[in-house]
Amino acid sequence: MAMENNRFIGVGIDVGGTYTKLAAISDAGIVFAQSTVETLPGLGPMKFLDRLEAAVRLLKDSISRPVRAMGMGLAGDVDSRKGMLRCSPNMEPFTGFPFKRRLESRFQVPVSIENDATLAAWGGYVAELKRRPRNVVCLTLGTGIGGGVVVEGALYRGSTGTAGEIGHTIVEPDGEECSCGARGCLEAYAGSYGIVRTAKKFLAHREGLAAGSGRRRVVGSRNIVWRLCPDLSRLDARVLALAAQRGDWAARKTWGVAGYYLGIGIANAVMLFNPDVVLLTGGVSRAGRWFMGPLLRVVRTRPMGIPARHVRVRIAKTPNLGSLGAAAWALEERKIS
Amino acid sequence: MAMENNRFIGVGIDVGGTYTKLAAISDAGIVFAQSTVETLPGLGPMKFLDRLEAAVRLLKDSISRPVRAMGMGLAGDVDSRKGMLRCSPNMEPFTGFPFKRRLESRFQVPVSIENDATLAAWGGYVAELKRRPRNVVCLTLGTGIGGGVVVEGALYRGSTGTAGEIGHTIVEPDGEECSCGARGCLEAYAGSYGIVRTAKKFLAHREGLAAGSGRRRVVGSRNIVWRLCPDLSRLDARVLALAAQRGDWAARKTWGVAGYYLGIGIANAVMLFNPDVVLLTGGVSRAGRWFMGPLLRVVRTRPMGIPARHVRVRIAKTPNLGSLGAAAWALEERKIS
Repeated sequence: MAMENNRFIGVGIDVGGTYTKLAAISDAGIVFAQSTVETLPGLGPMKFLDRLEAAVRLLKDSISRPVRAMGMGLAGDVDSRKGMLRCSPNMEPFTGFPFKRRLESRFQVPVSIENDATLAAWGGYVAELKRRPRNVVCLTLGTGIGGGVVVEGALYRGSTGTAGEIGHTIVEPDGEECSCGARGCLEAYAGSYGIVRTAKKFLAHREGLAAGSGRRRVVGSRNIVWRLCPDLSRLDARVLALAAQRGDWAARKTWGVAGYYLGIGIANAVMLFNPDVVLLTGGVSRAGRWFMGPLLRVVRTRPMGIPARHVRVRIAKTPNLGSLGAAAWALEERKIS
Repeated sequence: MAMENNRFIGVGIDVGGTYTKLAAISDAGIVFAQSTVETLPGLGPMKFLDRLEAAVRLLKDSISRPVRAMGMGLAGDVDSRKGMLRCSPNMEPFTGFPFKRRLESRFQVPVSIENDATLAAWGGYVAELKRRPRNVVCLTLGTGIGGGVVVEGALYRGSTGTAGEIGHTIVEPDGEECSCGARGCLEAYAGSYGIVRTAKKFLAHREGLAAGSGRRRVVGSRNIVWRLCPDLSRLDARVLALAAQRGDWAARKTWGVAGYYLGIGIANAVMLFNPDVVLLTGGVSRAGRWFMGPLLRVVRTRPMGIPARHVRVRIAKTPNLGSLGAAAWALEERKIS
């Protein structure tokens, strides 16, 4: 463990549905290089490996230090012993593919494969929080909601590698439909598709009000969402954050709902894990200004007050915690950190 | 750690609102003696310590081996460093009293103080599960619902000693009132007071139906709950289990509701901790026959299936896991086990 610093490199690969991010960091935690390639899961895992190999070679060429370990985060249920995806709603073509074995034979280094949000939690713990707190719950807020947990300074993966799946905890029994097929999961309210669904309901409601009162044009003229995004099928969390910023009523109500349910999911995780920090990362976390108020209102007003008062809920400032975490975890698992 | 077996004794004390249970176990995990005293918290902590001292002396006299450590479980939020209750709805007179310091000076052995359900979880892990699984969530089902967690074979207490508080996770936003002052906690539906409240609603509803249809006498004659417990203010979980056994409709519906919400709370804990076993203990767990069906239906039908299929939900057979766990934990903390 007491290595000379910056001698060895870990490469981290965060495989998203659209983009795959790469990072090379040293045993001292210094980021040496980062890059991005398209994932294109539809073309199959072999083509993906080819593109990945080219990207990793480019990364290695820019460093001139030996790569000693690689880590890969995959969105879905990961069997880390076999080093493959057991199941994944968003990356069906990659399920069952032996990533660990194939990567190890291509690159001749040990490869660690974990759930992407689990590795983002480790990235948050190492790169954002500098390993200072003992117990951390990390949420990755994007299309879906991933989660990971650090317990007593160690990454906790659970008995089948699935620990920290806060996105699929139930926050509203018999509530909205979730991507997983269940109802009332946190993701169904605070994953970006759930947020967009809530917004469309508020927009339709406003439309109905306007039609009913004959004031359609007046209300329409104040409709900020529709001016930002005339094609509602393209509505996303970024537009809704912008609309909230410009004072749009439906957008603000929408973020209120997302924040309320994030508050319930996080309050429950706080009761169970009693962490020092809850860290939020991922694209949707950038809209924190609009959901943090209602979120904290739920967490802070829990009567069993000590864990709720102890915990700090923070939005991560460091980008790419997924790939950084994958690289850091690969080094950690080989005891090169 | 490699001690000769059965040479040293740990004494465990599980302080409940009504009774305090004691257990003496050896470093090899053999139970040497158990006893019970009344808690009578209203008389204050000093009187309680006097009664406790007498009980411990009786226990020691029957063993003739040296007591090397004592553990105490208290219902409420425990500061284990200071060795006292920070707050407790049921044992107000004991809050702030320096149990650790007073017990150590009376008995001249090191004393470990933790939340009672946390120690019951350790008892379940050691005495019921024989330390076989790696990750365990334990629920103590009684008037309230306590919880404790074992992570990678070690008792996990969280950052303020409050981890595992599953009874105060939200299972129904804006739901029934909980003893903690919040709404919709698991305890409000599956703690015995919540179960009794649900039963009274079903009974009142039936009464209403009977009155409305003019069939009061007929329905009344089938009213098993009222025959078992003519004074409804004394209705408890034991009566409701007996009534369910005899085919009472309201009692069975009541257990169905409790099981459904236990299912939601446990499914959420399974998503977050991904444990091997969820262990149920405490008086209400004896009614498992009536709530396990609906409980497992919620857990097993979660679409994110791998953690839900992996976990076994079991009812503990060993009684007094609270005092056994307190004794075992005291030895564990001193490395005498």
